[in-house]
Amino acid sequence: MEEIVMKRIKAVIAMAVCGLLLSACGNLGSTGTTSTSTTSSKGTQLTGQASAGQYQGVIKNSRYRTSKARGVNVSQNDNTYNLKSFESGLLNISKKVFSTNKYVFQEGQYLSTSTVTNWLGRKSKSNPTGLNPVNNGSTSPTKRNPIYLQQMEEQDYLTESGKKLKLSGVTIGLGLNSIDYYTKTAYGSTYQTDISNATVKKEGQLIANRVLKRLRQKKALKNVPITIALYKQASDDSLVGGTFFAYSVNKAGTTSVKSWTPVSVKNYVYPTTSSSAKVGNSNDETDFTNFKSQIENFFPNVAGVTAQAQYTDKQLTGMNISITTQFYSETEIISFTQYLKQAAEKYLPSGAPVDITVSSTEGIQSFLSRTSSGKSFYSHVFSSY
Amino acid sequence: MEEIVMKRIKAVIAMAVCGLLLSACGNLGSTGTTSTSTTSSKGTQLTGQASAGQYQGVIKNSRYRTSKARGVNVSQNDNTYNLKSFESGLLNISKKVFSTNKYVFQEGQYLSTSTVTNWLGRKSKSNPTGLNPVNNGSTSPTKRNPIYLQQMEEQDYLTESGKKLKLSGVTIGLGLNSIDYYTKTAYGSTYQTDISNATVKKEGQLIANRVLKRLRQKKALKNVPITIALYKQASDDSLVGGTFFAYSVNKAGTTSVKSWTPVSVKNYVYPTTSSSAKVGNSNDETDFTNFKSQIENFFPNVAGVTAQAQYTDKQLTGMNISITTQFYSETEIISFTQYLKQAAEKYLPSGAPVDITVSSTEGIQSFLSRTSSGKSFYSHVFSSY
Repeated sequence: MEEIVMKRIKAVIAMAVCGLLLSACGNLGSTGTTSTSTTSSKGTQLTGQASAGQYQGVIKNSRYRTSKARGVNVSQNDNTYNLKSFESGLLNISKKVFSTNKYVFQEGQYLSTSTVTNWLGRKSKSNPTGLNPVNNGSTSPTKRNPIYLQQMEEQDYLTESGKKLKLSGVTIGLGLNSIDYYTKTAYGSTYQTDISNATVKKEGQLIANRVLKRLRQKKALKNVPITIALYKQASDDSLVGGTFFAYSVNKAGTTSVKSWTPVSVKNYVYPTTSSSAKVGNSNDETDFTNFKSQIENFFPNVAGVTAQAQYTDKQLTGMNISITTQFYSETEIISFTQYLKQAAEKYLPSGAPVDITVSSTEGIQSFLSRTSSGKSFYSHVFSSY
Repeated sequence: MEEIVMKRIKAVIAMAVCGLLLSACGNLGSTGTTSTSTTSSKGTQLTGQASAGQYQGVIKNSRYRTSKARGVNVSQNDNTYNLKSFESGLLNISKKVFSTNKYVFQEGQYLSTSTVTNWLGRKSKSNPTGLNPVNNGSTSPTKRNPIYLQQMEEQDYLTESGKKLKLSGVTIGLGLNSIDYYTKTAYGSTYQTDISNATVKKEGQLIANRVLKRLRQKKALKNVPITIALYKQASDDSLVGGTFFAYSVNKAGTTSVKSWTPVSVKNYVYPTTSSSAKVGNSNDETDFTNFKSQIENFFPNVAGVTAQAQYTDKQLTGMNISITTQFYSETEIISFTQYLKQAAEKYLPSGAPVDITVSSTEGIQSFLSRTSSGKSFYSHVFSSY
């Protein structure tokens, strides 16, 4: 319980920082076009689309419309990989349901910080809306009731209706613990309750049903499609975040979840640390290993090379490679980046987006990226005048 | 003197880390092509060219041929902006003389760590080759002999000759202090001797002449063109590095500098901190200010926005914009980056390369870049699985 209280305090502080400058939806200036003039900063604008396949965001009176529960998830995650992968994964689920061409993205406006914080808590006399089970008094890892629901996020999807934006869909992400970390006393040692995949799925589905019912009680959400997606949190020591495993699309007005669509997303870290560790695809790991051995001895001081790899339906759908080494001159960074481009194009698997970041103790030095359909890598060396 | 000794110790340590795995130039595998195979890691390869207008670098037995004086300049600069701008500026000077299509870049192989460290020291009984004036015993800012030469760098330019690479040109950069920082006692307060532009120029030219004479005594450097470029170091508290102000191209065999070509490069920081501060071009500053005011209130918490701007012959030749703000979700980063792309394309001056990096306390979050001829910005959000 200490943990939860601490997290709530953090959330409240985060909220205080955020400010409360959000207001109801006004007239829409000129949707879809660049409307960033300094003079007419009133009304609603959109952020524009940096690339196809991304949602535009909503700007109100020159200011981004931030989430009503802004900052809660930051304080709910000890492993920031869970934060990033939860939010970008939820966007990917939403894209299956709400087309980026038709819908505009808005940070959640219907669940407030206090609502989300209460829902993430344990059910109790003082917190009747808690979605996590009551505290049964046990501190035994196997006998206590663990915290199942660790984080949740609301995303709103709007469509243009005349000159206004209209709420036309909502996506809710539920982040469920695979391991629940707890302490027996304040600031005491950390213990953990492991939660099986079957339990994660079962509890997630139960919570989703309750969330759907509650959302339908809000007037604005009564008659919009609500997508709910279930995410399994990675452990706190993981070098890659968790993954979504199921989602349900609930038509306007429905108050219980009819069916779930399974999602097969897996994350891996290369190089694998032990021979028994799971590998997404052994060919990809071989490719990565060849690339790694090609570059780590480029300088007399060895570079550190690791990768996150994501697989969807057993196909590689993305790789983030992180290289750390010490540089002694700007020309070394330039030469290394050129060499990386060659080696990456030669060794790394194609057909999936690949990002490579090169860092030293002074931070990022260069960066290379290839899209899923691209053949060559874009490369950039961060310079200074 | 303490400062110099400390810096030398640092340089020696850096050298020890580097290792000594450099050897003489061998057979050239297949220059100009991608020759990064794991099996034939013997011989000389090139890094490949990431983009037109960049030099390829030299790889020897799968390892980058690092400078013989690797790490000396790192320890000579308290302001890292002076390090980066010195090295990339020297590359730009070299490009005026040695075409990137014809020449291959090699880190300096003829001036060793000990040579450079000695040359950067004061002339004394124990250091007869010191290029800085003898210590006259005074600790008065105006009466003492300041350290003029703060850093120097050798860059080698090779051409292909049959299957071998042949040294065909050398560039030497000399970094000259505009302010010499010194202490009167070990670990004591820092004092400074200001050095006028006229003195920087005069002393730089004298040192260049002596360096040219010495280089001609080395057999390998007797009959190659040697370009010497003079750089004025920025102050230690500057938020932008110094600039090159002159260079001389010395034909093969010549032992004294005949003439100097002036270079007009100026660096500025926007927003200017005081009304009397110098501005590169008031239109550019207005553009930057409009961009800044458009984005700094995007979130309820204000973003920090600063820029380095470089002018060559009074024309803007580059801008690096650095934005720092706090994000509460991945979707905030995506939306902000989309918005930045719109605002940058609308407000920022065109015709010069512009880089924008977006960071939070967790490091870089996204990045946008436009080339000098480009119309739209490339944008990238750093994500995680």
